[in-house]
Order: sequence, then C-alpha cells, then structure tokens
Amino acid sequence: MYSFTIPTFVQVLEFFGTFAFAISGIRLASAKRFDWFGAYVVGVSTAIGGGTIRDLLLDMTPFWMTNPIYLICSALALLWVILFGKMVIRQQSTFFIFDSIGLALFTVVGIEKTLSLGFPLWVATIMGTITGAAGGVIRDVFINEVPLIFRKEVYALACVVGGLTYGLCEWLKIDFIVTELISGISVFVVRILAVKYHLSLPVLKGEKTSDD
Amino acid sequence: MYSFTIPTFVQVLEFFGTFAFAISGIRLASAKRFDWFGAYVVGVSTAIGGGTIRDLLLDMTPFWMTNPIYLICSALALLWVILFGKMVIRQQSTFFIFDSIGLALFTVVGIEKTLSLGFPLWVATIMGTITGAAGGVIRDVFINEVPLIFRKEVYALACVVGGLTYGLCEWLKIDFIVTELISGISVFVVRILAVKYHLSLPVLKGEKTSDD
Amino acid sequence: MYSFTIPTFVQVLEFFGTFAFAISGIRLASAKRFDWFGAYVVGVSTAIGGGTIRDLLLDMTPFWMTNPIYLICSALALLWVILFGKMVIRQQSTFFIFDSIGLALFTVVGIEKTLSLGFPLWVATIMGTITGAAGGVIRDVFINEVPLIFRKEVYALACVVGGLTYGLCEWLKIDFIVTELISGISVFVVRILAVKYHLSLPVLKGEKTSDD
Repeated sequence: MYSFTIPTFVQVLEFFGTFAFAISGIRLASAKRFDWFGAYVVGVSTAIGGGTIRDLLLDMTPFWMTNPIYLICSALALLWVILFGKMVIRQQSTFFIFDSIGLALFTVVGIEKTLSLGFPLWVATIMGTITGAAGGVIRDVFINEVPLIFRKEVYALACVVGGLTYGLCEWLKIDFIVTELISGISVFVVRILAVKYHLSLPVLKGEKTSDD
Repeated sequence: MYSFTIPTFVQVLEFFGTFAFAISGIRLASAKRFDWFGAYVVGVSTAIGGGTIRDLLLDMTPFWMTNPIYLICSALALLWVILFGKMVIRQQSTFFIFDSIGLALFTVVGIEKTLSLGFPLWVATIMGTITGAAGGVIRDVFINEVPLIFRKEVYALACVVGGLTYGLCEWLKIDFIVTELISGISVFVVRILAVKYHLSLPVLKGEKTSDD
Repeated sequence: MYSFTIPTFVQVLEFFGTFAFAISGIRLASAKRFDWFGAYVVGVSTAIGGGTIRDLLLDMTPFWMTNPIYLICSALALLWVILFGKMVIRQQSTFFIFDSIGLALFTVVGIEKTLSLGFPLWVATIMGTITGAAGGVIRDVFINEVPLIFRKEVYALACVVGGLTYGLCEWLKIDFIVTELISGISVFVVRILAVKYHLSLPVLKGEKTSDD
C-alpha cells in the first residue's frame, strides 16, 4: 500500500536548494578539517537552521521534524562532497545558481507561512529573511568565523527585497501564484546582480574599541 | 481614525534603553567593519535578543513581533551611528546611563512577565537576567568574541540583585509600583557602582587545557 | 509539612551526569579566565543546554524551569572547581566516567520524551543526540572555540547508536526497562571504547577556501 507521489516542481526546487545550502556548510566545515559527523551537522544546520528559528519564533513544530527528506538531502550532500570533493570547486557556479534558487524559495516559503498565521507583512518579511539567511549565520558561528553575510554579501538584503515585492504585489491585488513567482524572482535577481556586479552595502566606519 | 497615544514614562525609558542597547551592538559591529545590514542585525539582536530568548522559554510570542517600535528604534540607532559616528565615542557616558536604565527596565519587565505566568521567583530572576544580559552575549557571538559579561563586567549580576530585591519587596508586601521601582533602581545602582569602583567578580583560577 | 523523597537510582545518576557536564564547562571557562559568573553560565549551559533546545523544538516547558535541582547541581560544580581546582585535573578519569554516564542517561531521556509525544524514532534519535551533545556545542560557542565534537570526538555518534539500539529493542518487543538499559549502555560503551581505542570518524578532505 505504498504510494509514490510525483514531486511537484516546487518540491524539486526545494530539494536542490536544500542540497546547495548543505553543500555550502559542508565545504566550509571541510576547510576547518571537521570530521564527517561535524560536517554533516554544519551542513544540515545551514540548510534547515533558518526555517527552524522561524518555526520556533512562530511557535510551530519545526518543518524538518515532520518529514525526513531534509535530513536525507543533507546526507546526500555530505556523500557528494566525500565522493567528489575536488570537483565541487569546479561545480561552484552550478551551486551558486542552486543556492540562489534555494534562497528565493526559502524566502517565499517563510513569508507565506508567516502571513498564513495572521502576522503583518513586516513580520513576514523578517521571517522570510530569517528562513533564507539565518542558516548561514549558524554555519559561520559553528565554524567560529564572523558571519559572512554581516560583512560583504548582499544576501539577506535580497530576502528583504523579496518581502517588499511580495507586499507590493498583494497591494496591487496580483494573483497569488504570480505574486509568489515575482517575489521569488526578485530575490534571485537581486542576489545574482549583486554578485555579478560586486554590489555591496557601505561598511560602517570603524572605531577601534574593545569597550561596549 | 488614527489615534495617537501619549507614550507613558516607562515607554519612553524603554525606547531609550532599546536605543542604547542597539548602539552598543552597532558600535562593536563597526569596529569589525560590518556593513550596514550586519551592523543593524547585531544592533537589533543586542536590543531584542534577551527578550526573545525569554519569550521562547516562556512559550510566548516574541514581544517585538507584535509592535514594530523596537525594530524602528534600532534603525534609528544605526542612523545615529552613521551620521554621528565619531561623536558617539564622546557620548559614551550618556549611553552608559541609557544602557544602565535599559538594563534595569528590561530586568523588571522580564521578572514581571515570568511571575504573571505563574512561575516562581527563582525562574523570574533568571528570566530577568536573560532579558537584560543575553542580548549582549548574542552580540559577542556574532562579532566572534568571547562574551564580555563572562569575563569582567558586573552586568548580569546586577540583574540577579534586581530579582532578589523584587522577591524581598514582595515578601515584605510592599506596594506593586514601589516594588518595581526599588527593584529597577537596585539593578541601576549595582551596575553604576560596579563600573565606578571597578568592582568585579573573582576570576576562576585557570588551568591550561584544551581537553574537556 | 516538608516531605523528603529518597531519590531514585536514575535521579542519582542524573545528578552526577549534570555535575560532570557542568564541571566540563566550568573547567574550559576557567582556562579562558572567565569570572565566577561567566564560569557558572558556561557550566549550566553545558549541563542543561541540550535539553533546553530539545524542549524548545518539542514545544515543551524547558525541564529546568520546573525544578531548581539542575541549577543547584551546577552551582555545586562551580564550588567544587573553586575549592579543588587543581585536584579536578587528577579527577579527570572519574569525571570522564560521570560524563559518559550523563551522556547515556540524557540520550535515553531525550529519546523517551520525544517518543512519548508521538514523534517517530528518527526524530527521537535526533532529540536524544541533541539532549546529550548540544550542551557541549553551546559551551564551545561561548568560549569562542570550534565545537570539539565536530572535529574529533565520537561523542554525538554514541547518541545516534543509542537511538538505533533503542529502536532495535522496540522492534524486537523487548521489555521497556530492559530497552532503556540496553540503549543507555550502548551509548556508554561506544563512548568509552572510542576514547580508549582512539576511534574517530574520518576527517573531511579539506579545501582551502574562505568563500561559500
């Protein structure tokens, strides 16, 4: 009585996004000479950490506790790095595309889950950003580095743009599916353009201080 | 049909406390050359991180998800540092006062929220301490430094004193408003005295070890 | 009308396990020259951090908020290190045994709490592992080190073995108490053997990169 369901297009995208996020964590862990277990934990935290924080803040059961696919997907990412370690570097641009797709998708999922619980758009935008970007912060805390997205990447800001675009589409009473698409594409495009043209936010003028 | 409510005295204090906490995070982020987004995240985490952990432990909706004022206040703090970066250092003593007011206020808010849910005083004291001090720990983890309050500042201990004072006042059946005031003032005074007279807790005698 | 209950054998083990976990955190904090407060926070986080994350994920009130014994036990551990600092190093093998007992016990507690809420075994195994191992990760984040268990210790893996053993016993319809015992012993034995024979997981082949 097993039933096999053909995965939807969104599920396929989600799988590749999770895979790319996990790969990013596992690669950084391997540069720090973590063992397989450590690399898996960092990979899985990168992939599901943002959504877990979102679900804790929304008081929902974390999404990965109801479906093992995310942990299996991260395990496959570990296997991929173990088997094709050196190739992964050459696959960099492919993973960058997957990673950006994941970012777009995770952001839209975070926005919609939050809106469906009755929270306003500004909360949903924050939750979308957390879903997309907080996993990378956990990853960088685990490998004991200053989080990358705080210093140079227009990564989380792409999520914020996605949230604002989502709100604009809703305000214009655009169809639900089209709103999802436009919002996700806006995240993807901002991310790709930022990397291609080396766009970044201004750095805050530093002061030398060890005092608070 | 908009209504404008004159903010209460406590709300004014809370605003300045949030502002001072966010400034402390943003300044340390700027010393690490974070970009504007990173500095904002560190500032906002310093300001609302403690209360968020408290609300997660108490199974409540995090307080900042129901009112955008805390995020707006942190954004104003970022604007302040961008515009008046160098002046902020000269404003140090002003911010120190605000920071101590914030600490006192956050501690009392944390204690009362916990007691109102039926928890005993020892849990409330811990929650008050977390509300006041955990934001600074998150800040230091994000900038990849050993948390300051673990090493030299009588900061969290001021919150513990506030909790014990609160309990003492309740035991003496002192009026509610007076209890709040005395508890808050005790936090403020301990913090100010500790900094003025360079009071600190003993350092644990170190052993050189990298083993657990 | 006070009643004194004779603690059960499991409660005695739990007390020693909490004590050993707290000692491990306090010792590492002392090597970083933390003050007493900082050392206590690191100790208590090592001891109760894993169970707290588990309870947040399971949407339960964190276990230590209903019984002060865990905080008292960690305070005794701090007192122990203050009084017998140098001796603690010579007590290393005793604490290693306690630590391994704690690991085994915490893992089984985590598994059973999760199963009792209706989650499947794979979720319970993860929660058992988090209960046993996440406290050590928080400890290492607080002292600003790369988490030890990600790099060289077969620590968390012992928890995973415990989860699988638990599932196997259930599948074989073995008695509940015996299942608990076998599962706990399997964690303990894997941990002891791994340390005795210097077993470790393969390290992921590193690539030198600071990019994601």
